[in-house]
Amino acid sequence: MTAAGLYEQVRLKMSFLCVGLDSDIGKIPRHLHLLESPVLEFNKKIIDSTHDLAVAYKPNLAFYEARGAEGWTVLKKTVEYIRSVDPDIFLIADAKRGDIGNTGAMYAKAFFEEMDFDAITLSPYMGKDTVTPFLDYEGKWVILLGLTSNPGAEDFQFLTAGSGPGRLFEEVIQQGAEWGGPDQIMFVAGATRAGLIGDIRRIIPKHFLLVPGIGAQGGSLKEVVDAGFNDQCGLIVNASRSILYAADNDAFDQAARKSALELQQEMATFLS
Amino acid sequence: MTAAGLYEQVRLKMSFLCVGLDSDIGKIPRHLHLLESPVLEFNKKIIDSTHDLAVAYKPNLAFYEARGAEGWTVLKKTVEYIRSVDPDIFLIADAKRGDIGNTGAMYAKAFFEEMDFDAITLSPYMGKDTVTPFLDYEGKWVILLGLTSNPGAEDFQFLTAGSGPGRLFEEVIQQGAEWGGPDQIMFVAGATRAGLIGDIRRIIPKHFLLVPGIGAQGGSLKEVVDAGFNDQCGLIVNASRSILYAADNDAFDQAARKSALELQQEMATFLS
Repeated sequence: MTAAGLYEQVRLKMSFLCVGLDSDIGKIPRHLHLLESPVLEFNKKIIDSTHDLAVAYKPNLAFYEARGAEGWTVLKKTVEYIRSVDPDIFLIADAKRGDIGNTGAMYAKAFFEEMDFDAITLSPYMGKDTVTPFLDYEGKWVILLGLTSNPGAEDFQFLTAGSGPGRLFEEVIQQGAEWGGPDQIMFVAGATRAGLIGDIRRIIPKHFLLVPGIGAQGGSLKEVVDAGFNDQCGLIVNASRSILYAADNDAFDQAARKSALELQQEMATFLS
Repeated sequence: MTAAGLYEQVRLKMSFLCVGLDSDIGKIPRHLHLLESPVLEFNKKIIDSTHDLAVAYKPNLAFYEARGAEGWTVLKKTVEYIRSVDPDIFLIADAKRGDIGNTGAMYAKAFFEEMDFDAITLSPYMGKDTVTPFLDYEGKWVILLGLTSNPGAEDFQFLTAGSGPGRLFEEVIQQGAEWGGPDQIMFVAGATRAGLIGDIRRIIPKHFLLVPGIGAQGGSLKEVVDAGFNDQCGLIVNASRSILYAADNDAFDQAARKSALELQQEMATFLS
């Protein structure tokens, strides 16, 4: 998918919502545990009830890998299910990988060939050669961690780094934007630090930002939009727990839809 | 395992070798492809022929994940096989993960409970709260990326960072050592930059270093030892491709043993 194609989806659905599929077997409603594949059934219900409101899904790999080979199968079937329901939706593997050449190529194969993801999140620490194997796939994307939404972001990302006045996250974003254009690379920019999204936007006016931290983590959608919108939206805003676990009963999917709809409706007001 | 326990293994085997199980189906000898699980059979042969010469194995997760649920099963069976052959060997999941609280906890569960690894490699970019969930497991280890052996290390790790005169990798190592003691945390320090291992040793005199980059990547074992040894060895040196792919025929396991033996014998001279 290109940036223009993604923006087309945003206009079509009047939404820049990404639903994070952090599907935790310990948190899904009890009645699903009677089924053969509880997490897959949970995901299907969430997908059925939200896909017209979202432009992206983002399974967090940890939740699947924690369950071994079975989890991996659930992930693969989830991806296939999403593709069957809504072929044009943007699919992000939230993997936060980062490894050198030949290993990176193996990961690219895993996520772009074994499974039909559009994008993968990567950590920048090991530099450019951890990113390039993924950029070889036309129409696929790298989403590089820039400024994350967690408290630990302060440990290194805010250090003054390099010869300029910049902080490490700004250096990462500046260099990263040289590795791939706005059709190839996005950056993670946490909603819990909305004030800084404006600083990031000045460095990269055209690249999309993937913004976690809305909802359970407390970030404000309006502040993110004020700081981060560009002329092609330029934002994908993720919510996970506030949608997935909106209710803990038979009607969890309708509660998830209600939660997603509130976000989509607020997004529509910003887009019109 | 404690640092003292690991040092005991080093003395027992007169070795500080780690064999990296970067087992690539495209590179293993052709005759194995006739078997039901080629990579598992390859790993078993490598393990049989090297475990008395090595103190650690380090499967690189990418090579397994690239093959989906099947790869995950091969990884799990490889771990079980290693444990059955040599229960005291140090098992490292080379995962290079790094994610926030609840996600980190899921990964810890995957690698320390689902599979019986002793240690996991993590990326420091997202800071302390990505590491702490792993430190909650007594006797288990975090191996934090400090200075990596790839060209891209220069993109960010060498930036002057923070208020002191230090570079980012030094800042990472200094802070990381405050998160966990020498029984909980190690650091990756690439052999291709042996001169800098001395700088790292001055920051952390007691912590173990995991050193990739010997062999195919061109690092010198003697230079690494000169710069990095401490009074309890303090080094685990990894070789992957130079052992795994020492020969591409029926006798690959004996060629692997020969390659590992050369390294072990050189290591023994440094240890005596």
